[in-house]
Amino acid sequence: MTPSMYHASIPAFIRMMGNLAEVLKKGATHATSRKIDPTVLINSRLFPDMLPLARQVQIASDTAKGCAARLAGQEPPKFEDNESTFPELLARTDKTVAFLKTFKPGQIDGTEDKTIHLKIGGESLTFKGMPYLLNFVLPNFYFHVTTAYDILRHNGVELGKKDYLGKF
Amino acid sequence: MTPSMYHASIPAFIRMMGNLAEVLKKGATHATSRKIDPTVLINSRLFPDMLPLARQVQIASDTAKGCAARLAGQEPPKFEDNESTFPELLARTDKTVAFLKTFKPGQIDGTEDKTIHLKIGGESLTFKGMPYLLNFVLPNFYFHVTTAYDILRHNGVELGKKDYLGKF
Repeated sequence: MTPSMYHASIPAFIRMMGNLAEVLKKGATHATSRKIDPTVLINSRLFPDMLPLARQVQIASDTAKGCAARLAGQEPPKFEDNESTFPELLARTDKTVAFLKTFKPGQIDGTEDKTIHLKIGGESLTFKGMPYLLNFVLPNFYFHVTTAYDILRHNGVELGKKDYLGKF
Repeated sequence: MTPSMYHASIPAFIRMMGNLAEVLKKGATHATSRKIDPTVLINSRLFPDMLPLARQVQIASDTAKGCAARLAGQEPPKFEDNESTFPELLARTDKTVAFLKTFKPGQIDGTEDKTIHLKIGGESLTFKGMPYLLNFVLPNFYFHVTTAYDILRHNGVELGKKDYLGKF
């Protein structure tokens, strides 16, 4: 069983969105136990012109759902990006996982050479399916999951690499 | 051409180690132009018990070279982890890329079910090749490349997502 386009994408997204949810839950618990306004964490950034925690979660979600939909030839669903609490961010990770779970291997496998058009910050990019997944989607997806973790870790939430990697 | 074990690993590592080198060069330039002691950046952490920039680069390197060697049935080469300057960290990324380039697809492909034993922080983990690559190596590799970027970004180095993702 080779790592098909499906294996290299959907199960990895589902796994890491679940891990991200656990990381966010620890953030929420930390805020409660330390009597920190949760919005301080949700709006926290590593630098003034970097994106805050909420946007990191939303873009991780967008990258995963956009990849699944585009490879399968669907229009990516639009989520409103209006999450501003931990419960809302957890609902976002849940909603993303539920969407990802609708995809069957047959919808994603064989899309290695499928032409994918993207607009990113006003720039148009065109990829074949495999480099889109391996060179654009995976680095981008892991960037936002990691940066969400880094923002909470930077704010003193007690997290370790196991929270990010999940159980084996 | 499906995304074989080779495609999903070695070219992605080579690409991202190159992007990481460009990110480090911008860190070095920033230190010079702002008259910042470069070791301040190299020892910088996002939180006191997180690893500093130099270790993030070393672990990204270790994760990539360890994956390539283990899948191919070789002993991973030991690098000394003694880099303490930007030129030394750039030599480390170069050395890692040179090692990765020695692998041919035939050495990595077909290792989906190969048994991989790992010791991580005193814990023994056993994987099959494909979950090792997709669930352990890729999340870990991207974690450390992203956190290296995040540390420099947090210190005011002018970087953008394009530096991390590289050219398309």
